[in-house]
Amino acid sequence: MKNARPLPSYLVQRYQGWKATTFAENHIWYRRLAEDGQRPRAMIVSCCDSRVHVTSIFGADSGEFFIHRNIANLIPPYKPDGDLHGTSAAVEYAVTALKVAHLIVIGHSQCGGVAGCHAMCSGKAPELEEKSSFVGRWMDLLRPGYEKVADMTDDAQAIRTLEHEAVKISLSNLMTFPFVREKVEADEMTLHGLWTDIGEGGLSQYIPEIDAFEPI
Amino acid sequence: MKNARPLPSYLVQRYQGWKATTFAENHIWYRRLAEDGQRPRAMIVSCCDSRVHVTSIFGADSGEFFIHRNIANLIPPYKPDGDLHGTSAAVEYAVTALKVAHLIVIGHSQCGGVAGCHAMCSGKAPELEEKSSFVGRWMDLLRPGYEKVADMTDDAQAIRTLEHEAVKISLSNLMTFPFVREKVEADEMTLHGLWTDIGEGGLSQYIPEIDAFEPI
Amino acid sequence: MKNARPLPSYLVQRYQGWKATTFAENHIWYRRLAEDGQRPRAMIVSCCDSRVHVTSIFGADSGEFFIHRNIANLIPPYKPDGDLHGTSAAVEYAVTALKVAHLIVIGHSQCGGVAGCHAMCSGKAPELEEKSSFVGRWMDLLRPGYEKVADMTDDAQAIRTLEHEAVKISLSNLMTFPFVREKVEADEMTLHGLWTDIGEGGLSQYIPEIDAFEPI
Amino acid sequence: MKNARPLPSYLVQRYQGWKATTFAENHIWYRRLAEDGQRPRAMIVSCCDSRVHVTSIFGADSGEFFIHRNIANLIPPYKPDGDLHGTSAAVEYAVTALKVAHLIVIGHSQCGGVAGCHAMCSGKAPELEEKSSFVGRWMDLLRPGYEKVADMTDDAQAIRTLEHEAVKISLSNLMTFPFVREKVEADEMTLHGLWTDIGEGGLSQYIPEIDAFEPI
Repeated sequence: MKNARPLPSYLVQRYQGWKATTFAENHIWYRRLAEDGQRPRAMIVSCCDSRVHVTSIFGADSGEFFIHRNIANLIPPYKPDGDLHGTSAAVEYAVTALKVAHLIVIGHSQCGGVAGCHAMCSGKAPELEEKSSFVGRWMDLLRPGYEKVADMTDDAQAIRTLEHEAVKISLSNLMTFPFVREKVEADEMTLHGLWTDIGEGGLSQYIPEIDAFEPI
Repeated sequence: MKNARPLPSYLVQRYQGWKATTFAENHIWYRRLAEDGQRPRAMIVSCCDSRVHVTSIFGADSGEFFIHRNIANLIPPYKPDGDLHGTSAAVEYAVTALKVAHLIVIGHSQCGGVAGCHAMCSGKAPELEEKSSFVGRWMDLLRPGYEKVADMTDDAQAIRTLEHEAVKISLSNLMTFPFVREKVEADEMTLHGLWTDIGEGGLSQYIPEIDAFEPI
Repeated sequence: MKNARPLPSYLVQRYQGWKATTFAENHIWYRRLAEDGQRPRAMIVSCCDSRVHVTSIFGADSGEFFIHRNIANLIPPYKPDGDLHGTSAAVEYAVTALKVAHLIVIGHSQCGGVAGCHAMCSGKAPELEEKSSFVGRWMDLLRPGYEKVADMTDDAQAIRTLEHEAVKISLSNLMTFPFVREKVEADEMTLHGLWTDIGEGGLSQYIPEIDAFEPI
Repeated sequence: MKNARPLPSYLVQRYQGWKATTFAENHIWYRRLAEDGQRPRAMIVSCCDSRVHVTSIFGADSGEFFIHRNIANLIPPYKPDGDLHGTSAAVEYAVTALKVAHLIVIGHSQCGGVAGCHAMCSGKAPELEEKSSFVGRWMDLLRPGYEKVADMTDDAQAIRTLEHEAVKISLSNLMTFPFVREKVEADEMTLHGLWTDIGEGGLSQYIPEIDAFEPI
């Protein structure tokens, strides 16, 4: 691998600032975490979006949250076919090895992946339909949610609904994993669906009884 | 999806604290980011590990870094077969849609995924060899790195070397993506390999000329 | 203009060093900033003083801060009389064209402009009272602050207080600009007053509730 | 002044990082600078643009450069009428009080102020012609330069030429200040005109003999 370059100096400076402050203040705990291992209370599945950092929203201390981030915070259904399944591996590790108490899926407003799915399903983004489009094939996971919004004439409303569907579909797919279902039914782990509004700083949670998201 | 539960109250409280402080201080910028979209400077591929938050190490402001987190910060090789490839989708979106300037892969010490791979390859974890093991199949990506450490008698040293290999293999696999290779060769994006020591707060970077990691 | 000279070679060397290192590391991002334009998060009004570089204190990445620097970080009141108002032009551009989220005024210790104002107002610098003194006429902006320190017998204390007044008067004058007031009242931009101690590396911020500066 | 707000926490963190690293390493020199005063070698007049930080390009140590930043790095002609002249005050202080050895004016590519001047002079931005436009009135300083580009059909070329004119006009205006002319003619201070290309990292300097900018 001959193409790697040195880290840009502005990141070196920021790292050194972190080392001299945050790390210095917490080094005893960090050493302990290194020696004794992590014991996170929850797994959070979030989007890669640069505007949604759950470490900030939930004031994450080091060691608290096991965080998987992918496009549109999607979890595929259980499919133990021997192929690569990065998201399923993360879920498996969190649930069976780390034994997290909570598994939280958090969606967000202005999600580029969800908007792309909406464009694809409504025929406006044929390039996403191509076999070679990784984003398109990944967003196929959300395709079942499109039927709920296909008739909506207001695109903004349709996309927001689809952002909510992304969370709901992920939660449903989670329950197809035997080790998840077993833990949930044995009351050894709880599932949570959230959605955050970037511009408003809002946070809603999915309430099964009304099949809707309510502000916290 | 009838199994979702309300968010634990300690997280509700933390969210409300964030809303009243960090969000309140920054809400004008967050609204702007919501309206104008993200323009992150870099994509960072990191582990899900609860002890490694690059948002902290690099003092990430909202909107700066597009972050994908999976087990052991691995990137699979390019394989446009129409199947699900969540990591490849994240890379594709960052490189082709967001046009990030840097793509940074960061590994870390005490990586459970890497230790699992070492155990699997050395015959100590047969359960990871099973077809149904998502973690095992995901860690197959690192299997080529095991040959470098197979003869090491010191497990700690072998695992550390394998953690470095995870970064190097990811960087190499990145170059199998046509849209990555094209950008790198056209000098429109740079690749970076890092490794952080949790207990020491250290940060090393991969230097191709010596094929090794050097402390920053 | 026949008097321009070649750049001193020590600056040529430093520039070439920057080009080969910082620029080289960041050139992809710089090219992107050139093509897509700047989107700074904040405007900072600082002194010209060679000992106060906010780019260093706040680890400024390229593109983050729109920086106006003048003598004693002063902002005059709104006066749309068709004359030249360089500072007002900078504020207007930042607020109306760039739509910055924050407007930060930062003063500092050992400010030569503020000390000159104190000398002028206490009768010790008659040359600054002359019509032709640009510094004197510019420091007239701070003259209203002198009444707060006129009775102080300790010059050092008086000058420090006047340095704080320079920040407060600038913030007050900012609110006389209709486009600033409108944004502040609509919660679309926030104002911040800071003061830094050169020798101690301290940073204080103005707290309106107590009408005083408190260390950060 | 009741509208000031606390500094956003991401800036507090960055400041604390700077204090613990850059300041800590340099505190003896900083204390000396605080006690003995500044003795900058040069004054630099630069644009407020967030993408042009001469502190970075010239690797500025604390205490080296007295920096004035305004829109489009313009210096008005000498006009001792007793009115406010912030830029003239900065020049006066640097030349007569600090006795800088060099006075450097640096322009740059993609300058929003210069582009606005071009739009105004070519009739495309009538709002900038209004008496109340601070940016428009400030850019009047560059209006004499427009005649050189009025006939150019390529806007990009015209604006680049006008960016160069901004530097040349500032240098010419500088010579209308008696205290500047005197120093220059007595060989006690030199003037320098520069222009930097943001995307290319280039630096050119004005060569009077050929009345043009040449790359360094």
